[in-house]
Amino acid sequence: MSRVLYPGSFDPLHNGHVEIIEAAASLFDEVVVATVRNPQKDDGFFPLEEREAMLSESLAHLGGVSVTNFEGLVVDLARAIGADLIVKGLRSVSDFETEMQMAQMNHAVSGVRTIFLPSASAQSFVASKYIRDIARLGGDVSNLVPGPVAKRISERYGR
Amino acid sequence: MSRVLYPGSFDPLHNGHVEIIEAAASLFDEVVVATVRNPQKDDGFFPLEEREAMLSESLAHLGGVSVTNFEGLVVDLARAIGADLIVKGLRSVSDFETEMQMAQMNHAVSGVRTIFLPSASAQSFVASKYIRDIARLGGDVSNLVPGPVAKRISERYGR
Amino acid sequence: MSRVLYPGSFDPLHNGHVEIIEAAASLFDEVVVATVRNPQKDDGFFPLEEREAMLSESLAHLGGVSVTNFEGLVVDLARAIGADLIVKGLRSVSDFETEMQMAQMNHAVSGVRTIFLPSASAQSFVASKYIRDIARLGGDVSNLVPGPVAKRISERYGR
Amino acid sequence: MSRVLYPGSFDPLHNGHVEIIEAAASLFDEVVVATVRNPQKDDGFFPLEEREAMLSESLAHLGGVSVTNFEGLVVDLARAIGADLIVKGLRSVSDFETEMQMAQMNHAVSGVRTIFLPSASAQSFVASKYIRDIARLGGDVSNLVPGPVAKRISERYGR
Amino acid sequence: MSRVLYPGSFDPLHNGHVEIIEAAASLFDEVVVATVRNPQKDDGFFPLEEREAMLSESLAHLGGVSVTNFEGLVVDLARAIGADLIVKGLRSVSDFETEMQMAQMNHAVSGVRTIFLPSASAQSFVASKYIRDIARLGGDVSNLVPGPVAKRISERYGR
Amino acid sequence: MSRVLYPGSFDPLHNGHVEIIEAAASLFDEVVVATVRNPQKDDGFFPLEEREAMLSESLAHLGGVSVTNFEGLVVDLARAIGADLIVKGLRSVSDFETEMQMAQMNHAVSGVRTIFLPSASAQSFVASKYIRDIARLGGDVSNLVPGPVAKRISERYGR
Repeated sequence: MSRVLYPGSFDPLHNGHVEIIEAAASLFDEVVVATVRNPQKDDGFFPLEEREAMLSESLAHLGGVSVTNFEGLVVDLARAIGADLIVKGLRSVSDFETEMQMAQMNHAVSGVRTIFLPSASAQSFVASKYIRDIARLGGDVSNLVPGPVAKRISERYGR
Repeated sequence: MSRVLYPGSFDPLHNGHVEIIEAAASLFDEVVVATVRNPQKDDGFFPLEEREAMLSESLAHLGGVSVTNFEGLVVDLARAIGADLIVKGLRSVSDFETEMQMAQMNHAVSGVRTIFLPSASAQSFVASKYIRDIARLGGDVSNLVPGPVAKRISERYGR
Repeated sequence: MSRVLYPGSFDPLHNGHVEIIEAAASLFDEVVVATVRNPQKDDGFFPLEEREAMLSESLAHLGGVSVTNFEGLVVDLARAIGADLIVKGLRSVSDFETEMQMAQMNHAVSGVRTIFLPSASAQSFVASKYIRDIARLGGDVSNLVPGPVAKRISERYGR
Repeated sequence: MSRVLYPGSFDPLHNGHVEIIEAAASLFDEVVVATVRNPQKDDGFFPLEEREAMLSESLAHLGGVSVTNFEGLVVDLARAIGADLIVKGLRSVSDFETEMQMAQMNHAVSGVRTIFLPSASAQSFVASKYIRDIARLGGDVSNLVPGPVAKRISERYGR
Repeated sequence: MSRVLYPGSFDPLHNGHVEIIEAAASLFDEVVVATVRNPQKDDGFFPLEEREAMLSESLAHLGGVSVTNFEGLVVDLARAIGADLIVKGLRSVSDFETEMQMAQMNHAVSGVRTIFLPSASAQSFVASKYIRDIARLGGDVSNLVPGPVAKRISERYGR
Repeated sequence: MSRVLYPGSFDPLHNGHVEIIEAAASLFDEVVVATVRNPQKDDGFFPLEEREAMLSESLAHLGGVSVTNFEGLVVDLARAIGADLIVKGLRSVSDFETEMQMAQMNHAVSGVRTIFLPSASAQSFVASKYIRDIARLGGDVSNLVPGPVAKRISERYGR
């Protein structure tokens, strides 16, 4: 049985993430989605627990997918849960270089491998950073994020 | 009659920006240049009003160009002023990916389109970030920025 | 009144091209779509006249769009038809660098400017090169190209 | 049980390919390595059968790996052998864009998915194209390719 | 006699840096390695003096290499020490664009030229940023940095 | 005394090349410029001897620069002439990736190192490929190439 780890900030989860998770769920027996706290960034848009709750609500329809939160080295989590590998989505060239470096660093320090899934191009422009910017300024992001995320953003920033 | 919006931080305006504005002014009837405050970045080099003043002084020679400042979603400004489209300059591959994502996000949330003008390569290396770094350390940037910008930088940081 | 030139090989026309043409038609009064023969590439998939016919059939629904074919320097055609500027679509980083070089070369040798429109990401992976490869091997490309193109490919390569 | 397809020209196989195959063999139950003829390129360096022979000789030490050759659409082969997905290696940004386009085209025309494995950086500069160029000019490529490939190149081009 | 300047943050020095310094030392008579304080980033991982100490300890085996620290414009340092040119390593496309811009800015404001040395690919994924992240979370980076750096990181963050 | 090799196709030499050669001549005692025949490309625009003649005529003003032609492995030429290293210009991201691969391949098979000089951005869009295309179609490239090259192109393709 194959178990893979899909880590990320998910601050907030958006439709591009969901698409990668759906693809991973179709390819592997078990997908663990982990929202990871970055101790260097204290400017979280949503707190870690709320991010995890939105993941759980938005992914409830997918079999073989579980959700957790984590603070620490992603490769430590991968080993702790017995994941065979880490899964990441690839969208842009900038993503590619950053993710390649992290994949090679992670392999060098722990032996854990990473595989990449291509974003379907229809969602490839969606990024959490822009969703945060638009939401803070009162824009409507409801067609870019799952319903449970849109609801929370609307409660906090709706105009 | 065609009216386009050219938004940016312009912190500070440099010769690469001026070149894009001159090109836009030659292609469209009316170009609105808007210096936009980014509420996430409180580390402005020049305050918004001073940036607008330098834009006005540096662009006075161009017919069909007006200047404003703005805080909010760029697409809201585009609709408020009746702009047919947003104009952005393209310089590097990094620019390209960021601008493509923003253009597609903006189109997805508002329907407003963006077009890109290529930077003439003689100015393509100039970036506000490096001008700020060099100016703060007392370097001479007078051949990279319009006269009114060079004057203000020299008053503040000259050695 | 603004007239722009959208040149390309269109060998064959695909849905990504159509999307750019629709965007250009919404922004400018008149769009001239020109299929250009590259004398260095004698491996045309469809002959120039057939490419032009497919353009005409596929774009018949768009007002303000006309179709032509051309052999020679694109900037000469732009001046001959009185086009204010050249329009190109941007899809990938590779596109970006090639198109930037051509735009700057064209401006340096003729003064004619180029503007870029971003491909909507849902079509950004479609490229004529892959359509030719898949068609030659009998694959089905009907959801990637307009109906008149799909029909001709099916007649020639259908299995 | 998971079966994946790793297609390529392998003209010739080099150490970067071998590394990807070893990684795939550690992650999936069965890896089918297929050397594919590109009917558009008749300038094969080694004929298809010889490429397949070199693959078999060079990969004999890897359990769960089988070798074949193929002419046609890669997605047709994937379905014919019951592969769950296609595996490709990623090395450079240029690779990334080409492979993303092909992955999205393949998914669009057949539903078959592609995953990417990062090249270990120690081999990331090795490319068949440069091996062919160096070999043709009598250079020594023996530390870039497996022994069976080095032996054949030496027989043909050795000085 | 040729003297070159190799500036950087070196926060911390890693094996990729050392490799560039070794290459520079084999090509030029004298290499001055300068750890530079960036007054905009007060989040130094190691203080400037400690970075300089680690450079001195890690580079003691290399003839023709001296170490210093500096706060100010890199081109001012280059002129002050009589360096013929600035040397930088190139690793990724992101590096390339940033370094090209800085090289062109530095040449425009001072006339000092920059040359680039390619990172050997075996170290090309190593970046100080990821070393800081992994070290802060207690990961083992000892195979990515010189011994004197590993020792200090272990003293501060070891688990 | 330092001697460097600057190899290329130079088919034809353009102003971007000249700028790199001028920079190299200011940094090193002796620069050998070699026009290299690529036996895989029989579509030379100018024959090798004519390319060498144009190099000699166009570089006559530069002290410490000599010109030659060559067919074979560039690293063999570097060793034959006792060059300390190979110099290449860098213009675009595409250049960067190709040149990095070649530099690393050349180092792996011969130990010869390569350094890169950044193109001044004012010439960074000029490429021999586009000059050939424009010249063949009768366009004017005289502001992109040295006088001796412009003269020969005009004799062959002038309209």
